[in-house]
Amino acid sequence: MFHHSSKLQYRVRVDTPNPAFAKHLQQAIGGIEGEIRVAMQYFFQAMGCRGDDKYRDLLMMTATEELSHIEFLGHAVALNLEGAPVSMQDEAAQDPVVHAILGGMNPRHILSSGLSAMPVNSNGVPFDMSHVYATGNIGADMLANATAEAGGRVLASRLYNMTDDPGMKDMLSFLIARDTMHQQQWLAVIEELGGWEAQLPVPNSTPQEHEAVEHSYYFLNTSLDEPTPEGRWSSGASLDGRGEFTVREKVEPLGQKPSLGKAKPMSGAQKEQI
Amino acid sequence: MFHHSSKLQYRVRVDTPNPAFAKHLQQAIGGIEGEIRVAMQYFFQAMGCRGDDKYRDLLMMTATEELSHIEFLGHAVALNLEGAPVSMQDEAAQDPVVHAILGGMNPRHILSSGLSAMPVNSNGVPFDMSHVYATGNIGADMLANATAEAGGRVLASRLYNMTDDPGMKDMLSFLIARDTMHQQQWLAVIEELGGWEAQLPVPNSTPQEHEAVEHSYYFLNTSLDEPTPEGRWSSGASLDGRGEFTVREKVEPLGQKPSLGKAKPMSGAQKEQI
Amino acid sequence: MFHHSSKLQYRVRVDTPNPAFAKHLQQAIGGIEGEIRVAMQYFFQAMGCRGDDKYRDLLMMTATEELSHIEFLGHAVALNLEGAPVSMQDEAAQDPVVHAILGGMNPRHILSSGLSAMPVNSNGVPFDMSHVYATGNIGADMLANATAEAGGRVLASRLYNMTDDPGMKDMLSFLIARDTMHQQQWLAVIEELGGWEAQLPVPNSTPQEHEAVEHSYYFLNTSLDEPTPEGRWSSGASLDGRGEFTVREKVEPLGQKPSLGKAKPMSGAQKEQI
Amino acid sequence: MFHHSSKLQYRVRVDTPNPAFAKHLQQAIGGIEGEIRVAMQYFFQAMGCRGDDKYRDLLMMTATEELSHIEFLGHAVALNLEGAPVSMQDEAAQDPVVHAILGGMNPRHILSSGLSAMPVNSNGVPFDMSHVYATGNIGADMLANATAEAGGRVLASRLYNMTDDPGMKDMLSFLIARDTMHQQQWLAVIEELGGWEAQLPVPNSTPQEHEAVEHSYYFLNTSLDEPTPEGRWSSGASLDGRGEFTVREKVEPLGQKPSLGKAKPMSGAQKEQI
Amino acid sequence: MFHHSSKLQYRVRVDTPNPAFAKHLQQAIGGIEGEIRVAMQYFFQAMGCRGDDKYRDLLMMTATEELSHIEFLGHAVALNLEGAPVSMQDEAAQDPVVHAILGGMNPRHILSSGLSAMPVNSNGVPFDMSHVYATGNIGADMLANATAEAGGRVLASRLYNMTDDPGMKDMLSFLIARDTMHQQQWLAVIEELGGWEAQLPVPNSTPQEHEAVEHSYYFLNTSLDEPTPEGRWSSGASLDGRGEFTVREKVEPLGQKPSLGKAKPMSGAQKEQI
Amino acid sequence: MFHHSSKLQYRVRVDTPNPAFAKHLQQAIGGIEGEIRVAMQYFFQAMGCRGDDKYRDLLMMTATEELSHIEFLGHAVALNLEGAPVSMQDEAAQDPVVHAILGGMNPRHILSSGLSAMPVNSNGVPFDMSHVYATGNIGADMLANATAEAGGRVLASRLYNMTDDPGMKDMLSFLIARDTMHQQQWLAVIEELGGWEAQLPVPNSTPQEHEAVEHSYYFLNTSLDEPTPEGRWSSGASLDGRGEFTVREKVEPLGQKPSLGKAKPMSGAQKEQI
Repeated sequence: MFHHSSKLQYRVRVDTPNPAFAKHLQQAIGGIEGEIRVAMQYFFQAMGCRGDDKYRDLLMMTATEELSHIEFLGHAVALNLEGAPVSMQDEAAQDPVVHAILGGMNPRHILSSGLSAMPVNSNGVPFDMSHVYATGNIGADMLANATAEAGGRVLASRLYNMTDDPGMKDMLSFLIARDTMHQQQWLAVIEELGGWEAQLPVPNSTPQEHEAVEHSYYFLNTSLDEPTPEGRWSSGASLDGRGEFTVREKVEPLGQKPSLGKAKPMSGAQKEQI
Repeated sequence: MFHHSSKLQYRVRVDTPNPAFAKHLQQAIGGIEGEIRVAMQYFFQAMGCRGDDKYRDLLMMTATEELSHIEFLGHAVALNLEGAPVSMQDEAAQDPVVHAILGGMNPRHILSSGLSAMPVNSNGVPFDMSHVYATGNIGADMLANATAEAGGRVLASRLYNMTDDPGMKDMLSFLIARDTMHQQQWLAVIEELGGWEAQLPVPNSTPQEHEAVEHSYYFLNTSLDEPTPEGRWSSGASLDGRGEFTVREKVEPLGQKPSLGKAKPMSGAQKEQI
Repeated sequence: MFHHSSKLQYRVRVDTPNPAFAKHLQQAIGGIEGEIRVAMQYFFQAMGCRGDDKYRDLLMMTATEELSHIEFLGHAVALNLEGAPVSMQDEAAQDPVVHAILGGMNPRHILSSGLSAMPVNSNGVPFDMSHVYATGNIGADMLANATAEAGGRVLASRLYNMTDDPGMKDMLSFLIARDTMHQQQWLAVIEELGGWEAQLPVPNSTPQEHEAVEHSYYFLNTSLDEPTPEGRWSSGASLDGRGEFTVREKVEPLGQKPSLGKAKPMSGAQKEQI
Repeated sequence: MFHHSSKLQYRVRVDTPNPAFAKHLQQAIGGIEGEIRVAMQYFFQAMGCRGDDKYRDLLMMTATEELSHIEFLGHAVALNLEGAPVSMQDEAAQDPVVHAILGGMNPRHILSSGLSAMPVNSNGVPFDMSHVYATGNIGADMLANATAEAGGRVLASRLYNMTDDPGMKDMLSFLIARDTMHQQQWLAVIEELGGWEAQLPVPNSTPQEHEAVEHSYYFLNTSLDEPTPEGRWSSGASLDGRGEFTVREKVEPLGQKPSLGKAKPMSGAQKEQI
Repeated sequence: MFHHSSKLQYRVRVDTPNPAFAKHLQQAIGGIEGEIRVAMQYFFQAMGCRGDDKYRDLLMMTATEELSHIEFLGHAVALNLEGAPVSMQDEAAQDPVVHAILGGMNPRHILSSGLSAMPVNSNGVPFDMSHVYATGNIGADMLANATAEAGGRVLASRLYNMTDDPGMKDMLSFLIARDTMHQQQWLAVIEELGGWEAQLPVPNSTPQEHEAVEHSYYFLNTSLDEPTPEGRWSSGASLDGRGEFTVREKVEPLGQKPSLGKAKPMSGAQKEQI
Repeated sequence: MFHHSSKLQYRVRVDTPNPAFAKHLQQAIGGIEGEIRVAMQYFFQAMGCRGDDKYRDLLMMTATEELSHIEFLGHAVALNLEGAPVSMQDEAAQDPVVHAILGGMNPRHILSSGLSAMPVNSNGVPFDMSHVYATGNIGADMLANATAEAGGRVLASRLYNMTDDPGMKDMLSFLIARDTMHQQQWLAVIEELGGWEAQLPVPNSTPQEHEAVEHSYYFLNTSLDEPTPEGRWSSGASLDGRGEFTVREKVEPLGQKPSLGKAKPMSGAQKEQI
């Protein structure tokens, strides 16, 4: 069960309201790199978590924290919109500054939300829940979470660079810090579970006889004119300790030329296809 | 530039066509765990890759392989639809088997595609390109790719379990194998770049002064009644070697109680808010 | 800031797991009538609430309750999936019951989530946040909330009718009850603010001179052959006490015949249009 | 059956074409507060209307009016685009005004529609029909309709404030007026059906034994530190006349701690979860 | 301006209600091949039509007809849902027929719409307005319309084959007929405008100097092992009479190898990329 | 199977990087008129192609070419973003030019992709695969392809007009040329298959007895006050040679007045409807 307390997890101060930055900040709320996504992703993973219950707890606790991140970011968006123009008075309409502000902001911050945050990204595209990655496989889920936090910290760092408002920089430095921790905590679960050698390949419960292992450890060079890039992936022991990396270049296709033949009568094709 | 040759990358054989399994296979084409996603994700990452060009090549070569996976899976869907009913002849209409087949398949495989594959998932929801994760940050991208391949191999393993058609099992065992390699090759890039300690936190180029480091290494327990789950994340050196994991429980909020005060006149609020 | 406690807001018991009902229940999680929607709608309204802060508190408290509804519904979905088939063993593959179960359930409950809840509706379509209605106008928002709860209680009542599992009926009777309260609490805000006469038309702050009031109180009959349906809307005082309802039938258009004339050169039209 | 006559329902005059305002107007066509939505919502509600046929007629007549609103708004968008630049001639390319216009308008008004209206909102996001709320329950539907018209009038009022073009203000004052009527006519249906006491809770046909009525009339305070906001919702008779409002604070969870236990073999989980 | 009359454009009779066929019919309402799409496509094309106004009239008249098609199809869906089960009474719950019906129908026809049509396709995916193709170029638009009607008639023919209900077959035979006409009328516009030779390439107003005409008339064979398929496209005069078709096989790329070099500092990349 | 070679199909040169034009170019990558769409449309049509295999080859070869178009356009977007500002240094923050650039570009080109292409349109809306039109009917598919190429060439022509960068004009003149060929090649398939008279109506395999032919050749004038526009569609032989075009004006509806009567008990309606 969820509960709420009245103060924000972190202080939000906007020294100079900036409606364009309000639009940018929306990426951290409703973008695929944003907080709705991680809150919901961890929440759904927690609800589907099977095995040791401590992982469910870990997920639910951080889901709860992410909900608090949405909350303070939402407040930051509203504070950045304080100065936005809402009416074209005669004098304002002449003012090029007003037009510049309008051109740089999301018009729906005026038209739809009345100067407050929306669950959309910086292009105004609503977040959709297909981005909640929750597979029921803890290895896949931890990778998805580390990915989300990496994307989130890249975004927070870019937002930090895109503003010179000290209050906003302060708030973003907190987000950057929490994303540091969250990246690590999800990768730490993999270490806790025996590390990459134990966890790979995901799912590690797939019986070996379900896998055509002769195809499991070569890098396939599909280029007609480029040599295989050399690296950790092209030779040496595989990361799961089960094989040896090799390379295949200009490999012959292993399959047939596909052909479906004639269409069935009554299948809605043209006569010439039947 | 892309080229094509006429044979499939891997052989596709369907011993007993099964329209319901055609629907299930769609998840591997147009699902978020599917092949359109990885093909396009690696392709866009390659086009945005900055730094050593060998990573761009690596990405483009595997993008190209994934296009070939879409191709053989698409053929597999069509072959599974060979037996599907397309018309309610008088006798067929009486046949409970026909109704059972129709109930289990995607009706759009008849109505929309004429017995062939579509770029949709197993619920018939079209793939949308917001799932192409490509940040321009190679660390975030490699994690996104390992995630995609982990999800992909989980899916391929589940599909393997959901069929008893030997041809389909053979094809899926190939997919399982390639997903093994692809998981590893993206994680191997991280090793090549110095491993987790060097790559974390992503982005590793964010200046330390942009980060409120006092918040970077504690796990936040937001539960009112559960102890912090103990593990690799709750104590010991952080994975980036820059800090020490700790835990904070029942932490006080650091921010203010938010209040926006009155609404502006002409902002479309109710009078009582202004 | 949000917090969590370990127990569910309401008990969840499934006497006979039913994977088809798991699919149906998804509508109450990820449907437009579902709990993600109300949780997020109240949350965003709270963050954008201007005027008396008690309405913000009201919204945030109920947003928090709705998060708890997602949580117990998610558990209910997982419990209903306990019996679902995950592999076509030889014997199972022959079993018509297994096929019937598979035909009635969402295949992604096996393929994508590993037998747990997803943020999708009963057709497997992911929830998208465009359904978070939050205008910054408290009158419009309260109507949107009463609407959401009306839709929610219609859905919960239909789900109640669609199951004969006593545990599920018990859980749904709780949801039906809470939706009763929530419908009323949002309408009670309108009463608190002076009732319909004071609140209508929304927004009640629009200056009268912005409105062509001669068009504000007639019902327009656009039918060529049907008389105007008589009722509260066709005569008598308007609900805002500012006018008198009347009716207009077979009204003449008030505007011009639209014509855009020629296309501009270089605008990408055909020559014949320019 | 539908018919059309050649003149617009209301006159459209644009004194000074403004491509940025064309973008803003799109919200009234393809936004969730817009005319496509209400036209389609009333149309689908009419087609599903059961009970007294006069409500079906009411819905269909107003659906038809809303189609006419799309039509004159579409013309208004095109007229606002008359002055838009379609080609970067040498002189124009130097002109900062041209760049300012381009920056403020939707580029797809040039690139995709050739200077005319599109079924998208002011961010260019296409309208999607999931926003057609039509439940088959007339109480829920009337609330949804009043909500849509409240949102619509909030939007029209904001657009009125965002322009100083007399022709556009004239057209918007008509829209504001019609939204006044439409808000009232849908609420008048509720009065016609006996008013809130008779209609609440929606659906009013749910048998009382399907409802855990002990949970139907209390406001749940889920905050850890805020008192319950006092108001019409916290004490007094409930709006349906069936109960008495009360308040519950810091309530104990009524449910169990959820746990799913081990994952099934062959379910695609990690070994450690099984 | 739009008007409505009370009777359907065509009679709708359902001899044996079939909830599964109600689901299938949804494709003709809310599918990309369906009636909402064509109604809205012709409507928006009409509103953006420049040049001779008779084409605007043609478009608006047929848009209006398509609205009437939505209406009778919506009624057909509702009539097919008459027999659907809405409650699991004890006896019904035992009945395998009830379960078969539920398995084959769209559960949202019960849960969300209360036994009536929705603006979704046969998978329950809502129609989205991005499918309204309206370019402002009459050549492109006429092709888009012929495409839509071709897809529509393929669908109607398949639906005809999927039912053995005489009433439904009668209604579909009307739709098939109207789609015949509509295909032809849009292609007839191209003939009216001078035929393909005059209209191609679309847009025919693009100055020849904007086109690298040396690349305008060869078919590019991108296969490594297949000969160019011979046909009307590989030799002979081009359809616009401006060139001669030829073929290029195994053509050398004309461009450079792309490389973006180093990432900028402060751009959120990994250090190794900068 | 697909292959790749390292050079671009066509050279990409950007003389003056322009982040606003990068945003515009996105329409040609991820718009409905763009290259992802045609690549995937031809690919899926190829995989579902039944009848003479040469059409499958034709489709797959051009699908492959379109993948190469995505590639060079993606490079063009990245080159146009070279000059984009990524950080608000003190001096830059004062610079009105920086703000103008930011206002005109897609902020996600900085925040999400790190200065490279994304699979989105010029409004930042991601491409979704519902736009892959592939019916299994070669007539419908060829029309869909000609439509896509007509829309594509309209777009490329408009982009050509929207830039004055010689490098970009050169690249676009190549795209314009290839779209010329592709329009023609798909229409040439129709000629190869016997031309319009043979191919219409699509599907030409629908038995005549499935069609209410008395409704197949009249144009329906649904206007109350406009005469039927005269043209090729209103008289003369139909394009399929099977009929004669006529006109029907002010036609009487052929159907009944629809009414659904009472709602079922337990269907979630209001009491008053039952």
